[in-house]
Amino acid sequence: MNYQAPLRDMRFVWHEMFDVTGHCQHLGLDLDRDTLDGILEEAGRFTAEVIAPLNRNSDEQGCQLLGTEVSTPDGFREAYRQYVDNGWASMTGPMAYGGQGLPQMASACVHEMLMAASLSFRIYSGLTEGAVLAVHRHGSEALRQTWLGKMVSGEWTGTMCLTEPQAGTDLALLRTRAQPQADGSYLITGNKIFISGGEQDLTDNTIHLVLARLPDAPAGVKGISLFLVPKILTDGRRNELSCGALEHKMGIKGASTCVMNFDGAQGWLVGEPNQGLSCMFTMMNDARFQVGLQGLGIAEAAFQGGLAYARERLQSRSLTGAVAPDKVADPIIVHPDVRRMLLTQKSLTEGCRMLGAYTARQLDLEHGAPDPEDRRAAMRRAALLIPIVKGFFTDVGQEVASLGVQLYGGHGYIREWGMEQLMRDSRITQLYEGTNGIQALDLVRRKLMGDGGAELHALVEELSQHVEAAGHQPRLQEMAGAVSQRLEEWRALGKTIIEACQRDPQEIGAVSVDFLAYSAYVLLAGLWLQAAVRAGETLTDGTGESAFYQAKLQTADFYWRRVLPRASAHREALLGGANCLMAMPASDFSC
Amino acid sequence: MNYQAPLRDMRFVWHEMFDVTGHCQHLGLDLDRDTLDGILEEAGRFTAEVIAPLNRNSDEQGCQLLGTEVSTPDGFREAYRQYVDNGWASMTGPMAYGGQGLPQMASACVHEMLMAASLSFRIYSGLTEGAVLAVHRHGSEALRQTWLGKMVSGEWTGTMCLTEPQAGTDLALLRTRAQPQADGSYLITGNKIFISGGEQDLTDNTIHLVLARLPDAPAGVKGISLFLVPKILTDGRRNELSCGALEHKMGIKGASTCVMNFDGAQGWLVGEPNQGLSCMFTMMNDARFQVGLQGLGIAEAAFQGGLAYARERLQSRSLTGAVAPDKVADPIIVHPDVRRMLLTQKSLTEGCRMLGAYTARQLDLEHGAPDPEDRRAAMRRAALLIPIVKGFFTDVGQEVASLGVQLYGGHGYIREWGMEQLMRDSRITQLYEGTNGIQALDLVRRKLMGDGGAELHALVEELSQHVEAAGHQPRLQEMAGAVSQRLEEWRALGKTIIEACQRDPQEIGAVSVDFLAYSAYVLLAGLWLQAAVRAGETLTDGTGESAFYQAKLQTADFYWRRVLPRASAHREALLGGANCLMAMPASDFSC
Repeated sequence: MNYQAPLRDMRFVWHEMFDVTGHCQHLGLDLDRDTLDGILEEAGRFTAEVIAPLNRNSDEQGCQLLGTEVSTPDGFREAYRQYVDNGWASMTGPMAYGGQGLPQMASACVHEMLMAASLSFRIYSGLTEGAVLAVHRHGSEALRQTWLGKMVSGEWTGTMCLTEPQAGTDLALLRTRAQPQADGSYLITGNKIFISGGEQDLTDNTIHLVLARLPDAPAGVKGISLFLVPKILTDGRRNELSCGALEHKMGIKGASTCVMNFDGAQGWLVGEPNQGLSCMFTMMNDARFQVGLQGLGIAEAAFQGGLAYARERLQSRSLTGAVAPDKVADPIIVHPDVRRMLLTQKSLTEGCRMLGAYTARQLDLEHGAPDPEDRRAAMRRAALLIPIVKGFFTDVGQEVASLGVQLYGGHGYIREWGMEQLMRDSRITQLYEGTNGIQALDLVRRKLMGDGGAELHALVEELSQHVEAAGHQPRLQEMAGAVSQRLEEWRALGKTIIEACQRDPQEIGAVSVDFLAYSAYVLLAGLWLQAAVRAGETLTDGTGESAFYQAKLQTADFYWRRVLPRASAHREALLGGANCLMAMPASDFSC
Repeated sequence: MNYQAPLRDMRFVWHEMFDVTGHCQHLGLDLDRDTLDGILEEAGRFTAEVIAPLNRNSDEQGCQLLGTEVSTPDGFREAYRQYVDNGWASMTGPMAYGGQGLPQMASACVHEMLMAASLSFRIYSGLTEGAVLAVHRHGSEALRQTWLGKMVSGEWTGTMCLTEPQAGTDLALLRTRAQPQADGSYLITGNKIFISGGEQDLTDNTIHLVLARLPDAPAGVKGISLFLVPKILTDGRRNELSCGALEHKMGIKGASTCVMNFDGAQGWLVGEPNQGLSCMFTMMNDARFQVGLQGLGIAEAAFQGGLAYARERLQSRSLTGAVAPDKVADPIIVHPDVRRMLLTQKSLTEGCRMLGAYTARQLDLEHGAPDPEDRRAAMRRAALLIPIVKGFFTDVGQEVASLGVQLYGGHGYIREWGMEQLMRDSRITQLYEGTNGIQALDLVRRKLMGDGGAELHALVEELSQHVEAAGHQPRLQEMAGAVSQRLEEWRALGKTIIEACQRDPQEIGAVSVDFLAYSAYVLLAGLWLQAAVRAGETLTDGTGESAFYQAKLQTADFYWRRVLPRASAHREALLGGANCLMAMPASDFSC
């Protein structure tokens, strides 16, 4: 399938909804509209022409392990070279180490394109950016000087080595050991699994960030430290670490997922001893945001694939008579149920793009707003949104990819068409970087209960402004009424949930997944109303491109009538309480 | 993963809910409880010991095409031999041709086990049973005598050759031609795709049922005839047909999916000229019912896999403190959200099993009830239920398999664990034998509108009896109230929909998928209430096995509190109307 970056919609979100140039100014960055649009167009060209064509083969060919060396699929090496040479690798890196320091609101669109073109290809550089963040924020000056430059440029990649066979969600069970050496370094010994990009042939060196325990460390998560462990040491020696196996996976087969064995590998402490988890947590928001974008990227790719097929596939006649009487049958886009699938794809994808940009703005402000109070406010807002972005976007990615398969009928099941690959590739995003169940627990326990619902209230207040703004446009009255009602319902539901969870901690896990989904649907409704207000204003001004703005209004209308009702089911379900989950003894599930 | 047939639940459905022995008696069949239970146990052993162990490798190895010959995965030939020798192939075949004539209500459980153990393996014999039905009902005496015996025994397999590249859902576009010969046979020429079992190495002969056009046939679906086209002719010559390619698929890789080329192959007309589609339609109910069972089988397998892992995987502590303080962490089944996933799997799977048995009874009565009026009543009921069974069970299969993946966390994405294979295998069931969108159109247009809602009303009446029966059990009052309300809502919704569709035909396609899902959730609620009533009575009687019946009550309680609310979303969404689907010009979807 062909991928073309949705530039028009990205520009709508950037300029017409969230004023990206004003945002850059506010951050003290000298990026004007032409520069930003230029980046967008160039990224669109690069992803469509260089990356997307590699994706199908990367699934068929996968990665190969020969001895302890891993080869990536054909074309990945050359594309990665271009990726680095063209400066995409260093786009978000810190300027002090050669990065371009682009704000997330700008880079998110480029990252979305990369995810859409090839999730497998993107994984290598995505993890490197995470490693850069961790070393930049927590590494000593010596570590930064030694390693950061080439990681930022993309000449070297980075990994995150957290999971062990017995320790996934529960890092307290981690066993990898770090033995202090006389020279201040450590020898790391242990086995890590699910290490994305643990070994590959794109770069000469890979910098592993490894969670491990010091000899005297307390048990549990309070005894975990973070180490930088390069594949190749500064003197050119190969470190005592290697890839023991590649996992056989459902998808993202072009991304190497490695079992990594550390056999007394030399490493250096990053941050304070026993503070490894909190070092990791400071980059968690960014990592989870990136995984959210993976869901969004896959969704866009699946929507484009589904739409192309729905326009060209001729099958049956419209329910109201032939629409294309000159053809043997009508294109299937005439059928209401096909349109239901397409509009579900479109409204969810564009909705997530808006929420992605909104969240990126918060992440930028959290780290770069001039006023400390603004930074704190953005931090609170981002903290609330991140689990929603990670959990909901990736669920959307899977749903929209599955709709892509469904739109193709039997052909959707055939590998050559590319739709089923999107389903397989996207399925990992609901699992890694904290399963979506873990995201939901984080939302309810840490975020909602953490401040007694204050941030949720503030968000509802902000979104309510769009209800007011819609008051000037008669065609939006019905939608504004529905959104207003949901916003009020959301606030009330948050209160109900906090009380229930305070009474019974089991309620936290009982309501969490449904509350995350509920919140996401209502949030998107608020943003769709904002988009509709903007589109309506522009149409009234008559500044052209009426088809684009009409389509925005029609997609918004579809969203609140046909997608937003899902919120009702999630609300009713979570009000069903914990008891119906906890009553059955574990032994009786299969009696 | 290991599969063990859920014998206890099957016996509950058979004997305690639907009186399978009374049902057999009513059909004039001499099958007592011991015989039936014996079949169930033997099938459980066979599927667990012989079939299930082949499933993982069949996915890795797949089918291979060498020249025009296809080899199936290791072990399939030997297992198929046992399958035939043990009489499983002939279980449902007509007794006049050596079949055992087992009613669907009995065979459905065996078929569910086969689907659960290996969908790929089951596909070969499932299609043969469909071909047997078509030849038995529509073939001439000569055709039946020549071909049917060895198809019934399983010595030969059968296929259904419908789809062509340009003709999937829309068979009017079919191009394959049949040229009459002097001897009364026909030469068939054309290309068919997606032919399951089109070529294989399990049997010496394969009998293809092929849709094609006679030279003078009218255009469209009224000019399609059905032909029997054997791979090997009676004189031992190989017919002019061959497998041109194997499709590369997302899953069911052990089932050969073939491009079949008919190059003047000799065939014989089945039924009347130009009546091919109606010949196919008489077996459609059975074929779609079988695909529904595929969804159910996969769901059971995924539930078993998820449950086993949830009991053994140790990760984190319960929200209320350690449950297994002697272990490094608690088994994840202590977590409410893990239980939500497991109970969703369990309540949907067991719910579908009840609805499957209920529907099987209707299919049996349609063909075998002594009273013609009973046969007609059963036909109407089955006609209403079949699209729901096909569409909903396969959606459930996919959802429950995906929950299986989610329960395993990152391990769910790894092939060795088997969960992701279930997702990939089950995804085809939502596409073939009429996509689920087509099922939904059939439900609304042919079934609901076809009789003005009469059959829906009759079904609501019948299910309402369980509400009354629940009146004697105080613990079921709340559930009975909820179910009663939904049944009334369902009836009213049917009426609303019929009126809307009569005003605007686009509404048919606009409401269809949501109405199918809505109907399924309410139907299952009615059956769960019936199960709860039965379980409650048995507990009161104190006839033992209290854990099983308690679990039934708890699962019913979970279902109406946490799953049934989905009906609200589907209802609200479909009431959103057709306009929000049809307003956007096709060209504006990507502007």
